[in-house]
This record gives sequence, structure tokens and C-alpha cells, in this order.
Amino acid sequence: MNIIIVAGGSGVRMGSSVPKQFLPLGTKPILMHTVECFFRFNNQINIILVLPEDQIDYWHDLCAKYNFYLPHTVVVGGSTRYLSVKNGLTKVDKGGLVGVHDGVRPLVSQDTIRRCFSEAETYGSAVPVMPSSESVRILDADGRSRAVNRAAVRMVQTPQVFKSEVIKKAYLMPYSDMFTDDASVVEAAGFDIHLTDGNLENVKITTPDDLLYAESLLCKM
Amino acid sequence: MNIIIVAGGSGVRMGSSVPKQFLPLGTKPILMHTVECFFRFNNQINIILVLPEDQIDYWHDLCAKYNFYLPHTVVVGGSTRYLSVKNGLTKVDKGGLVGVHDGVRPLVSQDTIRRCFSEAETYGSAVPVMPSSESVRILDADGRSRAVNRAAVRMVQTPQVFKSEVIKKAYLMPYSDMFTDDASVVEAAGFDIHLTDGNLENVKITTPDDLLYAESLLCKM
Repeated sequence: MNIIIVAGGSGVRMGSSVPKQFLPLGTKPILMHTVECFFRFNNQINIILVLPEDQIDYWHDLCAKYNFYLPHTVVVGGSTRYLSVKNGLTKVDKGGLVGVHDGVRPLVSQDTIRRCFSEAETYGSAVPVMPSSESVRILDADGRSRAVNRAAVRMVQTPQVFKSEVIKKAYLMPYSDMFTDDASVVEAAGFDIHLTDGNLENVKITTPDDLLYAESLLCKM
Repeated sequence: MNIIIVAGGSGVRMGSSVPKQFLPLGTKPILMHTVECFFRFNNQINIILVLPEDQIDYWHDLCAKYNFYLPHTVVVGGSTRYLSVKNGLTKVDKGGLVGVHDGVRPLVSQDTIRRCFSEAETYGSAVPVMPSSESVRILDADGRSRAVNRAAVRMVQTPQVFKSEVIKKAYLMPYSDMFTDDASVVEAAGFDIHLTDGNLENVKITTPDDLLYAESLLCKM
């Protein structure tokens, strides 16, 4: 069982010089919470952490500073999320399941993780989604937009879990701009995507407001 | 200039017996913050508040309790958002602009309100949207799903502002399940929808987590 945690962000949208995955949430950096979620789920899971090359030393310094010694393998990221996951896949154990998770989603629930791994075992893939509380419009090529049926919209979270042969085969395909997550890669390779429930708190922390939100949830937990 | 504030929610998703629009945010109920946003924007705006019939007495009690005396007209809501807006439209001044806003979006910025009214004057409609930070999938009729190009996705907020003749004509159409906001009604009536920028904080408060988020932002403001 493997989990690839992708943490390639910068601090630009945070208005911070520290990449967002290293910002403190409660008592420690966001990324340490994320790693802990998967270790708590299964302390034998193969945790593969993908980081930009120029952030790896900083991560090791943080681990020393916070006495963070949960076992994990660090892999150098690529210039896109697609390439980062592809690099992470080189460290996957043969066979079994492979999950991919955003480093800046530290509030994923144990139930969501369990559901995704369990259903991927049955269906070959499991992708956590939530309904949208907002109406959604899609821009056309000519810049106009059209409403889509909100009842049919699903907002996609992570971990996205796949049988290892499925995701490995999918990542042999050439890169496309349409690849914004692993489900879109695996789908483009011709596999079916099985959807399951995510959890509301499982937000991607990309702005200072998201961080405030996560802080308020952490106080509650 | 008119703003119809639609507040038809129950407290079900909040796990509360008090409808969500009446829950306290900081020092007063959510809905009072929302009304204030529009009064602050323009103290001559015609504020039309649409409430379920069985909540109107409670609202008046709250107004007395909180010494809340900003001028507004209360209208009885219908069984759907569509019918509630339609009832609200009966109290609109002749001509000018009509905005429709969710009662549970108290964190709309003055810039967003200004932009929507100003651009609706030029284009006939103005709908605030934000890009999606998450990948999006659409369910097909057979229960399967497909990825959509995230770069083309826009999450729709309110206030949605229209020239009064446009929205009044649109709301003469019979109800459809596809009507989840005013833009979808106006578009179905054959009018173009002009998109503009919303603001990140302008979330719809529908869960206890959303309320925590709003509290944390309010502390910051």
C-alpha cells in the first residue's frame, strides 16, 4: 500500500515567502499533519513525499526542528504535478494500491482515506468527491459561458487511489493540459473512475483564508 | 436600484433548529450582516427580504432584540428559490437594476457589490464568479462521470444583478429543475450572461464548518 503526497506549491497566493505546505497549522507545518493522517491510517503504508528540489533541505531542517521522524521517502518533484506524480511512482512497491494526495489537504478524514483504499481494491479506482454548494458555469472557447446542472457537479478531492498497474499504465501517456488530477490522467488512459464520498473539511489550503478555516477546524477537532 | 435578499433556508444541515440565516455570526445574526452590506453600499437601495412565512415573526422579534432598524421590505417566500425570487420581484421599483443575493452570504465585499451593479448597467447582467481550486467532474445520466477542463470552470456567487426588464421577463418562464440561480433563469430566457469577479470570502454559509470559517474571517476584518 502506497501513498504519494505531492507538495509542489509556492507561497505566492499565500502572500508568503514560505511555500504553503510548510506554513504552520496549529503546532506544526501543514505537511506534517498530512503525512500523519496516512501514518495514522496504516503505520505500514509506504509514504512517498514529492517535493521541489530546492525545498528538500528545508524540509529536512523542519523535520529536525519539530522532531518529526515518521518514516517516509522523499522524491524530487517535476515542473508540473503530472511529472511530480510520475517521479513518485518510481518509488511505489510492486503491486497493491497507490494513492495520490495533495500535501495541502491536512484535514482529510480517516473515513475518507479508508473508503478510498477499500473501494479502489474493489473497483480499481476510488476518487473522493463532494456535491457543489454553488452553481457552476463553464466557459466556452469563445469566452461565453453556460450553466451546467448543479445536481450533476462533483468537486474532486484527494486521496485518489488506484490499483498500481492502472495508475502506472496511465502515467505512460504524454502530458496534456487537461490533466489537473490523477483521475483525469487515468480516465484519459481508458479506465473507468469510481467515485466515492470525500469529507467537507478536506479543503485544499491555497489562500490565507483557507488557512484560517483550517485553524478553526483544528481547534474544533 | 433594488436588491432581493433570499433567505429560505432551514437549519437542517447546520444541525440546528434555528434556520441558518438567523444563527449568530460575531455579534448578530448572519442575515443582519448581509442586509448591512447592501445598505453600506447604497443607503437608498430598495432592500427586499424574502423569508418563509413561518419565519417572519421571528425575524421581527430578532430585529427588535438587536435594535436592527435598517429600512427593508419583507416578502413571503415560495416553496422554491425560483418562486421566492418571483415574489420578491413584485416589490421592485420600476426600471433600474435588480440584484438577487443569498441571505447566507454575509461576507460579500463592497468591491464585488459595486462591480456587479456597475457592470450590469453596461451589459444588462453581471454575475460574480471565481475559478475552482478543485478538479470538477460531471455525472452523466447513466451514473458515470467525466472530467471537465478545470480552467473553464467558474463557481457562481451572488449578488447576480440584472436590468429589471431582463430579470422580470425571465421570471415569466415556467419553473425548471435546472434553475439553481438567477443566471440560469435569465440565460434560459435567451439573454447573455456577463461574468465578473466575485471575492474569495463570499462563501455561502450552509454547514457548521462554513460558519467557523466566517467567524475566523470576521475576526480578521
